[in-house]
Amino acid sequence: MTHDKKLKIIPLGGLGEIGLNMMVVEYDGSLIVIDSGLMFPEDYMLGVDFVIPKMDYIKERKSDVAGIILTHAHEDHIGALPYLLREVDAPVFGTPFTLGVVRHKLEEHDLLSSASLNEISPGHKLNIGEFELEFIHVSHSVVDGVGIAIRTPLGLIVHTGDFKITHTNIDGMMTDVNKFAQCGEKGVLALLSDSTNVEKEGYTISDREIGETLRRIISKTTGRVIVALFASNIGRIQQIIDVAKDKGSKVIINGRSIEVTVSIAKQLGYLHIPEDMEIGIDQVSDFPDDMVVIITTGSQGEPMSALARMASGIHKQVKIREGDTVILSSKFIPGHEKAIAKIINNLYRRGADVIYEKISEIHVSGHAFQEELKMMIHLTKPRYFIPIHGEFRHLILHARLAEQIGIPKSRILRAEDGQIIEFDEAGGRIQDSIETGRVLIDGKGIGDVGRDILKERRALSEDGFVAVTLAFDEETGIVVYGPEIISKGFVFETQTGHLLEDAICVVLEIVEDVEPDVPDRIEKIRARMQADLRRYFNFTIKRRPVILPFILEV
Amino acid sequence: MTHDKKLKIIPLGGLGEIGLNMMVVEYDGSLIVIDSGLMFPEDYMLGVDFVIPKMDYIKERKSDVAGIILTHAHEDHIGALPYLLREVDAPVFGTPFTLGVVRHKLEEHDLLSSASLNEISPGHKLNIGEFELEFIHVSHSVVDGVGIAIRTPLGLIVHTGDFKITHTNIDGMMTDVNKFAQCGEKGVLALLSDSTNVEKEGYTISDREIGETLRRIISKTTGRVIVALFASNIGRIQQIIDVAKDKGSKVIINGRSIEVTVSIAKQLGYLHIPEDMEIGIDQVSDFPDDMVVIITTGSQGEPMSALARMASGIHKQVKIREGDTVILSSKFIPGHEKAIAKIINNLYRRGADVIYEKISEIHVSGHAFQEELKMMIHLTKPRYFIPIHGEFRHLILHARLAEQIGIPKSRILRAEDGQIIEFDEAGGRIQDSIETGRVLIDGKGIGDVGRDILKERRALSEDGFVAVTLAFDEETGIVVYGPEIISKGFVFETQTGHLLEDAICVVLEIVEDVEPDVPDRIEKIRARMQADLRRYFNFTIKRRPVILPFILEV
Repeated sequence: MTHDKKLKIIPLGGLGEIGLNMMVVEYDGSLIVIDSGLMFPEDYMLGVDFVIPKMDYIKERKSDVAGIILTHAHEDHIGALPYLLREVDAPVFGTPFTLGVVRHKLEEHDLLSSASLNEISPGHKLNIGEFELEFIHVSHSVVDGVGIAIRTPLGLIVHTGDFKITHTNIDGMMTDVNKFAQCGEKGVLALLSDSTNVEKEGYTISDREIGETLRRIISKTTGRVIVALFASNIGRIQQIIDVAKDKGSKVIINGRSIEVTVSIAKQLGYLHIPEDMEIGIDQVSDFPDDMVVIITTGSQGEPMSALARMASGIHKQVKIREGDTVILSSKFIPGHEKAIAKIINNLYRRGADVIYEKISEIHVSGHAFQEELKMMIHLTKPRYFIPIHGEFRHLILHARLAEQIGIPKSRILRAEDGQIIEFDEAGGRIQDSIETGRVLIDGKGIGDVGRDILKERRALSEDGFVAVTLAFDEETGIVVYGPEIISKGFVFETQTGHLLEDAICVVLEIVEDVEPDVPDRIEKIRARMQADLRRYFNFTIKRRPVILPFILEV
Repeated sequence: MTHDKKLKIIPLGGLGEIGLNMMVVEYDGSLIVIDSGLMFPEDYMLGVDFVIPKMDYIKERKSDVAGIILTHAHEDHIGALPYLLREVDAPVFGTPFTLGVVRHKLEEHDLLSSASLNEISPGHKLNIGEFELEFIHVSHSVVDGVGIAIRTPLGLIVHTGDFKITHTNIDGMMTDVNKFAQCGEKGVLALLSDSTNVEKEGYTISDREIGETLRRIISKTTGRVIVALFASNIGRIQQIIDVAKDKGSKVIINGRSIEVTVSIAKQLGYLHIPEDMEIGIDQVSDFPDDMVVIITTGSQGEPMSALARMASGIHKQVKIREGDTVILSSKFIPGHEKAIAKIINNLYRRGADVIYEKISEIHVSGHAFQEELKMMIHLTKPRYFIPIHGEFRHLILHARLAEQIGIPKSRILRAEDGQIIEFDEAGGRIQDSIETGRVLIDGKGIGDVGRDILKERRALSEDGFVAVTLAFDEETGIVVYGPEIISKGFVFETQTGHLLEDAICVVLEIVEDVEPDVPDRIEKIRARMQADLRRYFNFTIKRRPVILPFILEV
């Protein structure tokens, strides 16, 4: 069967959005899944907790799944794993830190005991299904990230994962450029490379530089220092601990998620905190101010985070005061700026000095900039180039970048979620597609919130509702209750005069208009109420509440 | 009365937020208002159209208001004027373009005929109340902006308005640094200066540079060019027209708001479009692609804008296609990034090339960067410095900047909205405060939407509602209708199995539990429904819909 002898690469997510990363690689009936990530909801997805990729394609082929490979421990690469493992019973492969975080996540979902978690490490080879996989260490904003060299019967596929390349990284965290170059020497059929930062010219600045800036700031402060960052950014946490150590400070790790990641990283030896240096949050007042460094989360303005509680004065142990220095060592992620700004303003208001990316270089992205992206292409010298991990514009710009440095347009396969990238002896192409999509997670509900529900939530969020209760005697057709009007989210009733009282008159007029013996009387009244009240409120107050007629025959 | 001989400066808005700019300057019972701006709603202000300052202080003193001075035509400086003029009958002063835009706005509010609009111009003096005002031309992202030199019996107050200083501005649009310097020579009691961009180091790049970049891009394209920008950015519009003219292109102005501002600017001679160069949107297909330049709005991703309609393929006359170049010549305003990204992705998807701030320098801010802010202080050599126009952190940073360049801390008056900055012979200080606040505008409602309504909208937006209708016979206490359950924004009913059916059982159990002859039976049932259904839904699906019991006795 020649058909089966094709190599297929099928993105289920991440090629058309930031996040939701999930990809199938398939040959001769054997299938591996690379990453299983979530995405945070778009603005219009009211009430939604997060989004996962539609996994039908994998579910339908579940007995063919040889393994699930996780490139690193970020939510946009592992967050959908619990949902995948509910459907597919396949071994999971990841580096020690990635599996540490996954273990914690699966425990919360009560799935840990049934999961098969298998440790991989860069340099070792793994044979699953029709593939031989080798993992390549990459530098990213989380430790233990890997790219993957996938040896297939049709050639070598290189998947970068999320990566950057800089040459002055902290020890042991550098991208293994030699290994990528070795792949290039052997011959790479296709390179799949991270497009997230393709809009950025030049190189990412090095983590060492960030470290030096942090050292300058922290060592000169005489008050307490509070650093907020992503819980998974173990490399940055180590840098801060090193500075604190040299200053002779104690360090406090505060916040639920960071306590988990720090504990995993310590156990695995990725993070070193001298024995007596770490103290608990309850001991914050036992040491002089210049000996206190608190490392916490909440750098995106998350309202329940430790930092947000400090900023609004409700953190139990830490009351922000003059002399405190707060450092937000992370990017302002689009959509979070207002929440972050609010926290910064509140911290200033309480007397703290605040240092953030807009006023100091205290953060560097974990994703390669243009020059690094070019270097990855030069290292691997791929026959085909496939931009991954990005919105449509990032994929376009990355394709353009590849073309600029010599990859012929015909060998750039700019696929989107659901498109099948197919390779055979004759070459590669985008051919056909499968159904993909986004599944919204809201509470325990998986996918039950869709377009209609979101539309209803949107309408309710904008102008609330007006409910009219009205009961008729079933036999006589006479009103025996109401009309009674209540509203929520619509108007503050004492301030709008006769608005709702007048609406009752509108309803009474309708009741009078529709004769008792007319067929479908209730339906007719209901429809008229919708139309007339909508018009009435639009005219009087220019709002469009949801109209809810509760009409009973008793 | 020595008390009356004090000069008071009272910010009602804009000192604690971006937008909402409004300030009272008062001496001896005479009062002027500087600007009357709106603010766009915060994320949590669901359904709110915009926000205006609470104006009670002015309303209570309405007979003392000698005039309302508008520094420029942006919404955050003029948007609340219709609401102020409903309360206060005072003359309005502004430059020709500002008044042009105001006239249009007042017409929409049916207030034009009753308003007294008075033209001012830089260089001319205006005596109102106890003040002599002189207007100083400033460069900003709208034409005809002014700062104000306010001669008061206690000294000269300089208010910058929104400004930047660069030396290669387009003709006639430069900040009149000489005039500010003259003020400095005469002696300035207090400088009130725009803090918006205090986080930015260095100088704004010049409009001329932007113009050259736009020229490079537009002149080399062989397809249609579509430039999206703010409707009020007349200077930028002129630059684009000049480039289009040299290229031999026709120009189309498309979009409701930009058509208004362009028409005002043309009438006033601020914008020059050669006679036969401007064509209508209906003629877009009558010319070769390289002769078409469309200037439009929607650069913030506004969903109903011309650009958004082009991006989603529903613009009547302009179907985006390969060869088109779309230029977003404006900042990505925080909170709008996702909407803008969506439009960029869609434009790329339709084949257009898209150029935006992240990949090319095609926009410059209208607000001074740090070096320009320092220059303003050096020019005016004020005795007191008052940072205005910014969130709390901007005011703090601007105060710090002033201190760095030599203003003593004791003479930096870092006030917030509502605080009274008072000057007398002995000097200046922050003394007392008045009540200020934000009034939410939703449709025709002014201030009737407050914390409670927003909380209801938030709750409804997250998980919708579940309504239970139930009727009892008044005498027998027997259920004569229901329980009937409907929901909106909660779950997609066919996908959640027996969730709502089981909820009916929960209700029936409650009815059984509460004896018919118990006092306040209905109230008890209602309260139980709230509690039990909430618990039931939280347990089964982990959502918290608003529970709406409609319980009737008939």
